[in-house]
Amino acid sequence: MKNVTLNVEGMSCGHCVNAVEGSVSKLQGVSEVKVNLENGTVDVEYDAAAVGVDAIKETIDDQGFDVK
Amino acid sequence: MKNVTLNVEGMSCGHCVNAVEGSVSKLQGVSEVKVNLENGTVDVEYDAAAVGVDAIKETIDDQGFDVK
Repeated sequence: MKNVTLNVEGMSCGHCVNAVEGSVSKLQGVSEVKVNLENGTVDVEYDAAAVGVDAIKETIDDQGFDVK
Repeated sequence: MKNVTLNVEGMSCGHCVNAVEGSVSKLQGVSEVKVNLENGTVDVEYDAAAVGVDAIKETIDDQGFDVK
């Protein structure tokens, strides 16, 4: 398992947390997702053999947030 | 039809707009709901014979926002 911390802009409330955690956790190969609203970060634990960071970023972007 | 403008705290993003507009518009007697994120206000047009302001406020409160 690998871990990555992404900087994500535009997450402002619990709905945003649910949108990000809900969508990313559905990706095959992702075992854990944790949004930190105060820091504007998303910690993801994933299996690099099953999913790439680009796909994770794209999923967050698709929810309407900017991944830096 | 009557109109009321409510001051609502905690609405920060499009998800919040959807939560408020979606829930209030489902109330019988409510004909229009419009959230203004920048002002933190919710404009509601309603039939006073069918629904009261208290029920509208309670619906918004149930979505996790403070109605002032």
